[in-house]
Amino acid sequence: MPGGIDATAILDRVVPAKDVDGFHPYNVGLLVQGRPTLHPCTPAGIMEMFRRENIALAGKRAVVVGRSNIVGKPMAALLLHAHATVTICHSRTRDLASVTREAEILIAAAGRLSLIGEDHVSPGAVVVDVGMHRVTDRATVEHLFPGNEKKIAAFANKGAVLAGDVDFTRVAPKTSKITPVPGGVGPLTIAMLMANTVKAATMRRGKDL
Amino acid sequence: MPGGIDATAILDRVVPAKDVDGFHPYNVGLLVQGRPTLHPCTPAGIMEMFRRENIALAGKRAVVVGRSNIVGKPMAALLLHAHATVTICHSRTRDLASVTREAEILIAAAGRLSLIGEDHVSPGAVVVDVGMHRVTDRATVEHLFPGNEKKIAAFANKGAVLAGDVDFTRVAPKTSKITPVPGGVGPLTIAMLMANTVKAATMRRGKDL
Repeated sequence: MPGGIDATAILDRVVPAKDVDGFHPYNVGLLVQGRPTLHPCTPAGIMEMFRRENIALAGKRAVVVGRSNIVGKPMAALLLHAHATVTICHSRTRDLASVTREAEILIAAAGRLSLIGEDHVSPGAVVVDVGMHRVTDRATVEHLFPGNEKKIAAFANKGAVLAGDVDFTRVAPKTSKITPVPGGVGPLTIAMLMANTVKAATMRRGKDL
Repeated sequence: MPGGIDATAILDRVVPAKDVDGFHPYNVGLLVQGRPTLHPCTPAGIMEMFRRENIALAGKRAVVVGRSNIVGKPMAALLLHAHATVTICHSRTRDLASVTREAEILIAAAGRLSLIGEDHVSPGAVVVDVGMHRVTDRATVEHLFPGNEKKIAAFANKGAVLAGDVDFTRVAPKTSKITPVPGGVGPLTIAMLMANTVKAATMRRGKDL
């Protein structure tokens, strides 16, 4: 939103039945109660990914890093309804690595570049990286992508490369599956926004939300 | 609700500004977003207890056992907003004791008699028992309250005694603080219903919800 505009006041004015972002408090409440509604796109996309990859969630330890209204909290609710045992971490969590190492499913959505390193992940974990950061510093690019000619060339060309909340280079070898940044969660979020738009239209044609 | 009546349909018809139970989806959404609203009474009462007992929550590991809309989920949201690192367990959680032993703050709200035993609690934990069960079986009473003449006399008199989700006799010695059943969370819940009623009236007189 442009400066001087209260985003919450605007979001509250969106008709819940047309709220394809799933940000209206009424839709948030329905989601948390496990009732049919429009789900926020990023968590919804991640759940879709789990379904398509046949990643079982019931009984698993899932850890969500980040407690935003857009990703962290709805993600935790969806994982909980899928019968995972869910832990939510954030900036005030003590000894983050010891908590994230409990994760069989780890969602990094803290908005901090490379927060999740090798020590934060147990062998075999499934890691989903929601972070998206523009790295404009050469030393950081070289640290994050050592010997990765493609990334270093991209940086030389554009003066920036994208990276996530997870230190992909060092974490990926420990995981059973991991999403990249870019090209992981981002495109899914956009796809789910389209899916929600169709869903909202279908619900309005058919029956009550 | 009497049989044949859909409780959800009724709750949805309560005006959010008068929803002193905090069960309407709109209020649930506001709570989860960390915005001012009427909070469900049992979790609100537990938070009030933490405040009055000066139990710090920020950075603590909190574990909520039970994921009901009435207690477990709103409790987790309130603990999260108080900066605890929150885990939610439920009937599908594997090795429950290993998860609950991580708790510095443990909320037992599963609705299962004596689910939380000695092995489920780490030394020094703060334990809050939300369970409330009528025990009508003599052997169970004697197992739960060995040598407790008062409980056994009460059972002889009334044919039943009350007990919680926590095996109080065996768990209490390990804890730094623990709520009893009855006389713990129950009366607080009723008090918070009164507090919410006053809060709702004040909000309606003063300004918008």
